[in-house]
Amino acid sequence: MKPLSTTAEKTTIVLFSGDYDKAMAAFIIANGAAAYEHEVTIFFTFWGLNALRKDEQVPVRKGFLEKMFAKMMPRGADRMGLSRMQFGGLGPKMIKHVMKKHNALTLPQLIELAREQNVKLVACTMTMDLLGLQQEELLDGIEYAGVAAYLGDAADGKVNLFI
Amino acid sequence: MKPLSTTAEKTTIVLFSGDYDKAMAAFIIANGAAAYEHEVTIFFTFWGLNALRKDEQVPVRKGFLEKMFAKMMPRGADRMGLSRMQFGGLGPKMIKHVMKKHNALTLPQLIELAREQNVKLVACTMTMDLLGLQQEELLDGIEYAGVAAYLGDAADGKVNLFI
Amino acid sequence: MKPLSTTAEKTTIVLFSGDYDKAMAAFIIANGAAAYEHEVTIFFTFWGLNALRKDEQVPVRKGFLEKMFAKMMPRGADRMGLSRMQFGGLGPKMIKHVMKKHNALTLPQLIELAREQNVKLVACTMTMDLLGLQQEELLDGIEYAGVAAYLGDAADGKVNLFI
Repeated sequence: MKPLSTTAEKTTIVLFSGDYDKAMAAFIIANGAAAYEHEVTIFFTFWGLNALRKDEQVPVRKGFLEKMFAKMMPRGADRMGLSRMQFGGLGPKMIKHVMKKHNALTLPQLIELAREQNVKLVACTMTMDLLGLQQEELLDGIEYAGVAAYLGDAADGKVNLFI
Repeated sequence: MKPLSTTAEKTTIVLFSGDYDKAMAAFIIANGAAAYEHEVTIFFTFWGLNALRKDEQVPVRKGFLEKMFAKMMPRGADRMGLSRMQFGGLGPKMIKHVMKKHNALTLPQLIELAREQNVKLVACTMTMDLLGLQQEELLDGIEYAGVAAYLGDAADGKVNLFI
Repeated sequence: MKPLSTTAEKTTIVLFSGDYDKAMAAFIIANGAAAYEHEVTIFFTFWGLNALRKDEQVPVRKGFLEKMFAKMMPRGADRMGLSRMQFGGLGPKMIKHVMKKHNALTLPQLIELAREQNVKLVACTMTMDLLGLQQEELLDGIEYAGVAAYLGDAADGKVNLFI
């Protein structure tokens, strides 16, 4: 773990999208910035929260609509679809096959690398409420905050992206 | 209404998307930034312009293609669809139901709050022309400008997002 | 060609999207910024690379999956679809018809203008590998780089967008 100095450049990404390819882009940029000693925050909101879901089913009490949402959304990074060329699930298989051939990191591996590099992963509590996602269902060791915390980081950031 | 000092931090958002959920994200960030005394501009372009349409039909003279566009695009924020889980209109109903339960502001309410907080709402005149939208069809009291005005604001901005 | 001073403001755009309308927005902003003497970089990644493809078929040796990807993705800016109202190809025709009527620049013309204004067009080598695109298939005279080069530009940029 690298020490974080207060003078480090800051980079923030809002990950709104629940697409595998867009999440890959977000984590590739985040990991690159972290490698350059930037302090990096990814703020997960709306469908982007799915990238943080544990891949096993977690038993939590929920209302009916929240259960339906949970069922219809992908459980974890590996199950996310592509923003185009989805082809009923064939597209992601093709991309993952090509990625393996090129020794490219998968999305779960990119997330793991981000954690090793101290990228701050923050789940948006307001949209967790809306989609009925509970802390037990998301990866351990992440942070929870609202839009105010995001803006605090972004106002100091040089590179701020919405993906 | 807050006085706007020239030293306030600036935040700009280009709202390109015509999706209800993405527009919500844009307005939540904009309202958060305005609450922190940032000068905030949202620049509405392409499908994002639909969030500014009045919800009633406005009688204006138009060519055939422009009439078709106007018919096929949602008339106002409340009629916009979701970027995913649209399910033929069921998704937005579900989301709005959950939002009500959680006392979350609807998109029209978020827009209203933004106006109360002096968020500058600017419609892109070039894409209004392309989509055949006329000023009478958009909310009263907004501004009209081109990409040059956006860039003038963004060059002074710390947080500049494209949504 | 304008001389680029080292003190010029910098603007960077990541073009991830393969949609005609989003690419238009990217180039309109890029050309506007270049007109204001900003140093502008567009970094093309994932589906955005399609905007750089030559419109003729280029004979290159490829594996089976790479050939399939190349076939399924649009060959060049003029063949890209819309992010919404695609209507099986009718939407782009309608938009292009209206653009002609309003004397708006087409996407290929916007790209040409960007090149004349010295906008730096950079293809992401990592995603070229993933999608099986080779340099011979992309427009002549562009640059090739990875995420590190993008971050180098963005860290100096005032306006950094992900489209």
